[in-house]
Amino acid sequence: MIDLRSDTVTQPTAEMRQVMAQAPVGDDVLGDDPSVNELEAYVADLLGKEAAVYMPSGTMTNQVALRSHTQPGDEIFLEAEAHIYYYEGGAPAALSGVSCRLIKGEGGVFSATELEQALRPPDPHFPRSRLVCLENTHNRSGGRIFPLAAIEAIAQVCQAQQLALHLDGARFWNACMATGIGEADYAAPFDTLSVCFSKGLGAPVGSALVGTSAQMATARRFRKMFGGGMRQAGMIAAGALYALKYHRDRLSEDHDNAQRLALGLQGLKGIEIDPSAVQTNIVNVEIPGLAAEEVVKGLAQRGVAVLATGPHKIRAVTNLMVDRDNIDRALTEIAQEVGC
Amino acid sequence: MIDLRSDTVTQPTAEMRQVMAQAPVGDDVLGDDPSVNELEAYVADLLGKEAAVYMPSGTMTNQVALRSHTQPGDEIFLEAEAHIYYYEGGAPAALSGVSCRLIKGEGGVFSATELEQALRPPDPHFPRSRLVCLENTHNRSGGRIFPLAAIEAIAQVCQAQQLALHLDGARFWNACMATGIGEADYAAPFDTLSVCFSKGLGAPVGSALVGTSAQMATARRFRKMFGGGMRQAGMIAAGALYALKYHRDRLSEDHDNAQRLALGLQGLKGIEIDPSAVQTNIVNVEIPGLAAEEVVKGLAQRGVAVLATGPHKIRAVTNLMVDRDNIDRALTEIAQEVGC
Amino acid sequence: MIDLRSDTVTQPTAEMRQVMAQAPVGDDVLGDDPSVNELEAYVADLLGKEAAVYMPSGTMTNQVALRSHTQPGDEIFLEAEAHIYYYEGGAPAALSGVSCRLIKGEGGVFSATELEQALRPPDPHFPRSRLVCLENTHNRSGGRIFPLAAIEAIAQVCQAQQLALHLDGARFWNACMATGIGEADYAAPFDTLSVCFSKGLGAPVGSALVGTSAQMATARRFRKMFGGGMRQAGMIAAGALYALKYHRDRLSEDHDNAQRLALGLQGLKGIEIDPSAVQTNIVNVEIPGLAAEEVVKGLAQRGVAVLATGPHKIRAVTNLMVDRDNIDRALTEIAQEVGC
Amino acid sequence: MIDLRSDTVTQPTAEMRQVMAQAPVGDDVLGDDPSVNELEAYVADLLGKEAAVYMPSGTMTNQVALRSHTQPGDEIFLEAEAHIYYYEGGAPAALSGVSCRLIKGEGGVFSATELEQALRPPDPHFPRSRLVCLENTHNRSGGRIFPLAAIEAIAQVCQAQQLALHLDGARFWNACMATGIGEADYAAPFDTLSVCFSKGLGAPVGSALVGTSAQMATARRFRKMFGGGMRQAGMIAAGALYALKYHRDRLSEDHDNAQRLALGLQGLKGIEIDPSAVQTNIVNVEIPGLAAEEVVKGLAQRGVAVLATGPHKIRAVTNLMVDRDNIDRALTEIAQEVGC
Repeated sequence: MIDLRSDTVTQPTAEMRQVMAQAPVGDDVLGDDPSVNELEAYVADLLGKEAAVYMPSGTMTNQVALRSHTQPGDEIFLEAEAHIYYYEGGAPAALSGVSCRLIKGEGGVFSATELEQALRPPDPHFPRSRLVCLENTHNRSGGRIFPLAAIEAIAQVCQAQQLALHLDGARFWNACMATGIGEADYAAPFDTLSVCFSKGLGAPVGSALVGTSAQMATARRFRKMFGGGMRQAGMIAAGALYALKYHRDRLSEDHDNAQRLALGLQGLKGIEIDPSAVQTNIVNVEIPGLAAEEVVKGLAQRGVAVLATGPHKIRAVTNLMVDRDNIDRALTEIAQEVGC
Repeated sequence: MIDLRSDTVTQPTAEMRQVMAQAPVGDDVLGDDPSVNELEAYVADLLGKEAAVYMPSGTMTNQVALRSHTQPGDEIFLEAEAHIYYYEGGAPAALSGVSCRLIKGEGGVFSATELEQALRPPDPHFPRSRLVCLENTHNRSGGRIFPLAAIEAIAQVCQAQQLALHLDGARFWNACMATGIGEADYAAPFDTLSVCFSKGLGAPVGSALVGTSAQMATARRFRKMFGGGMRQAGMIAAGALYALKYHRDRLSEDHDNAQRLALGLQGLKGIEIDPSAVQTNIVNVEIPGLAAEEVVKGLAQRGVAVLATGPHKIRAVTNLMVDRDNIDRALTEIAQEVGC
Repeated sequence: MIDLRSDTVTQPTAEMRQVMAQAPVGDDVLGDDPSVNELEAYVADLLGKEAAVYMPSGTMTNQVALRSHTQPGDEIFLEAEAHIYYYEGGAPAALSGVSCRLIKGEGGVFSATELEQALRPPDPHFPRSRLVCLENTHNRSGGRIFPLAAIEAIAQVCQAQQLALHLDGARFWNACMATGIGEADYAAPFDTLSVCFSKGLGAPVGSALVGTSAQMATARRFRKMFGGGMRQAGMIAAGALYALKYHRDRLSEDHDNAQRLALGLQGLKGIEIDPSAVQTNIVNVEIPGLAAEEVVKGLAQRGVAVLATGPHKIRAVTNLMVDRDNIDRALTEIAQEVGC
Repeated sequence: MIDLRSDTVTQPTAEMRQVMAQAPVGDDVLGDDPSVNELEAYVADLLGKEAAVYMPSGTMTNQVALRSHTQPGDEIFLEAEAHIYYYEGGAPAALSGVSCRLIKGEGGVFSATELEQALRPPDPHFPRSRLVCLENTHNRSGGRIFPLAAIEAIAQVCQAQQLALHLDGARFWNACMATGIGEADYAAPFDTLSVCFSKGLGAPVGSALVGTSAQMATARRFRKMFGGGMRQAGMIAAGALYALKYHRDRLSEDHDNAQRLALGLQGLKGIEIDPSAVQTNIVNVEIPGLAAEEVVKGLAQRGVAVLATGPHKIRAVTNLMVDRDNIDRALTEIAQEVGC
């Protein structure tokens, strides 16, 4: 199966498995796991922040960030289809009691002005404005990049209004690779960032929350409360560190493959796609005349796995498990399936 | 002062004060207050439902309804500028842990089809769909009426999808008066309704939540938990019952006055208004070239109180304290203030 | 009926009704109600604090205080049978997400040392220690007084440990009357106090939260969110102010009547009571050989209403509606009912 | 270092690391991880239940169970020093909004009668009774066993009162080993059980929640919301399955070592210990005249790690990393440290 459902399906390589099998470990709840400690120090340093905390998922790093920055009755600002709002089970309201004020963006990006227009003055009728969350790259918009200049303008509004600024960086490494901007430079405007090791990087499990030491001490408390305190977590943290060190560079292959896929699909009848909107590793495809669920089933029988993300919309994500030949074969199968 | 800020500013009439002063009372937390019990029975009967519970505010009746119908992690569906989402301090997330899925309506109204498009299938990534809330009349849209046929179509979707249906009826009485539809007929599609006594009806305090006896037993428990259990509440419930019996008919005067105001404003330079959009007692006025806060201050000095509801938008609400002569005088003052 | 179930059953006097009927009012959500404003200023001044907020119930003033002082995941410290824990519907957990650490007191009172022993060090396994709540007088213990010296010792621990200190003063006025300690002196050690107008004072509705201006601004926001923002609340606030001014002195009658009742019961066979434990207006009576529910029913048929507070325990609360002759008659009926 | 701080410090054996390194994996959020699926099926079968869900920690399995069985405003019943209440960061209140009603047990065990006495009737003043949680073995009481007969009597009360019954089985395997009761028999009275792989069994990470298929579907949704959805979790689940298959039997060694340690300590001056209370692998030691923190430091310098669990109380937990010789050496060091 050529699995293009998501970059979350990537499996550890033989080298990564080897490193994991030999990782020195300890009880991380007691702070004793050397592999976890090394990963946390490495990622904090890479992003130019003081400290990091390793957690079992990106949902947890995001939700712990929300919980750390807010109180129930506060309002947070996100793009209308942000992963934090759309795909995390209603956790912002359920775990942190915060209202989501959605800003309709263009390709997952909104401007400092649009943020300012969404803010409301202090008034007992309104929730208290407290936190802005960006997403880079933006999942639902097809891996679109949030430009650094736009982020910096938003960060200025946040400072003026005493709002915290958090990044859902599930695919932060893709944004860095595609733009050539350094990790620390891209991270600089944010108070906290969530970065993921189990997507394009190919580690089996985990994300990190990154920020100041004081914020991370608070985050560690909420991680425990949410059930994210793991014991000999070094077994998986070692895979994350390996991926972080050795798999960031190879993201460019995923981006090349995504571009190849998009260009190949562009010519097909019944398919609408704009290759210039494919900036990283996610390829969103419109199939106006076809039922997405049917196409997904048909392709699966042909050995190509993709996801339906709307009634007439499918998504393919290039990743570590898929090489250029796979892309070419996928193109052939898609062409046959959609009947051109 | 001709106070057009809101119909919440209405003060009890002399007759109402008289009735309140003589009201028989008891400890309502123990179920012993005859005036509260009479009010609850009266309003339940009027709406064709089994039972009602009196509470200190419409925010509480709405939020107790949400809490009764949902669990944390659920999703509720409301119009994008619904009072429950916009003006209740972020309570849906803070008190019930529910996510708000906003549907952009036209004049506060959305369709059954738009609701269906917003629903998502069961999936651990998504909150659980649970409740739809409508608002009739719709505050932010200028007192617009939700047509009964549109409500019934939505109720069908709710039944098919096992969603509960709640009405924020802060101005339900205005909708009944303006359409001539009977209270019980207009209430029929809903599982629960919140109706208010302290707006156009002119009672000093309180709203009621209305529904089945079982729902109201649950609501009574949450009312206590939220701090809405009052002792000799008959002192204010008597005013609410008086208002309900004797002030519903007079809402037509407010509607006539609102229409008169809208038509009078229509001719003024610098003012944009569509009188046909004024369906009940709220008059939203656009003043494109002027700063709303400045106009509000200027009018206050002229003895006319209105509210700014946007940078270039003011709102006037006709009510029990304002007669036709007041409207004519307000028109004169507004004309002078906006400089035509 | 001689109603001794609670001092919450007290009804407004004719004079109080008169004052209420003539009260000047406005929209309190907009800050415009002169009667509410006067009450808030009066009670803040009486307690020597900066500001106060009027709310519909003591449950709300307590729960808004908890919400203001804490964040979800914090721990609060209270006596094992504190009203806040025992009778407020589980609101500390449901509305504020806080854990209750219960300290077993003697007559509702615990010591600074017992508090210190209950504190735990900062550790991700533990909730964060944040707030101590006392109750004066203590309901479940029969209206027992919390001595000022014991409060001051606890306040010192709170300062050293950066814990806030709140008083559930549902019957604060009784404690002041019984001890002769001035209201401001008794209130001095606390950050916030909840005081009630609808118990012994006899006002129909309401409590106030009292503290600094900054705390009360926050409280006002949470009051709105909880649904406690009332419109022309002056109608009931006027009764509360009247009660506060003219009914505090008469609490001594309730205390005398409670002592008379306790002494009268002391002689009866089948009844266990310690009159020296009756310090204010609550009389807890043990009836070891009898079913409390049956005795309550029997007494009701004889025209005396009391509450069962345990399988073999009943409670009588003297109040504004019951004079000395009523007490003597109640004694006669109780003697006949318990069969001596 | 002879590490007796906890059985959470156990490290994977060479064989276990081997199995983990070769585990087949997939994206568990999408249900595709064969190693996770095998573990879940195995543990459900072993406990005689329909289904299981693997999660990163025992705190998460417990808290997801609470969340699944309750609604905010409910009350749960637990022993006064239950891990769920004492060591999980205040999560019952923070994540589920439930009040903890604590029952003071003897050695972590309470009776059906004590449960019945703690129940309160339905009343808006009280939280709603909903769930009982037991802990077997009981951590804070030194690994004490909850007898099956006592559990069955409690289960009968739960059925009669429509309460759910959950087991915190962090050391369930120890209870089975020590009593010889089969896993399915010991699990039978419970609706849900949390069982742990990373304590005595020695797996690096994870616990499972076990119950009906319907309950586990709900649990899977809350696991995602809490951030416990991991991707290629088979890498650690394979270790858990190995431990479950091959390390249960060896728990008897830990129990023998704990008994040996307790008997050896019994003779020492300055130490109070009752070896008959040491039923499994936890040894609680009273050191009345000594400061626990100092003793812990002194022992650490001597190469023996234990935990202070009170001002004059230390705890030693035998585990996979410690053999009989280590116990004898620990005894020598302790004897020298406490100065006898």
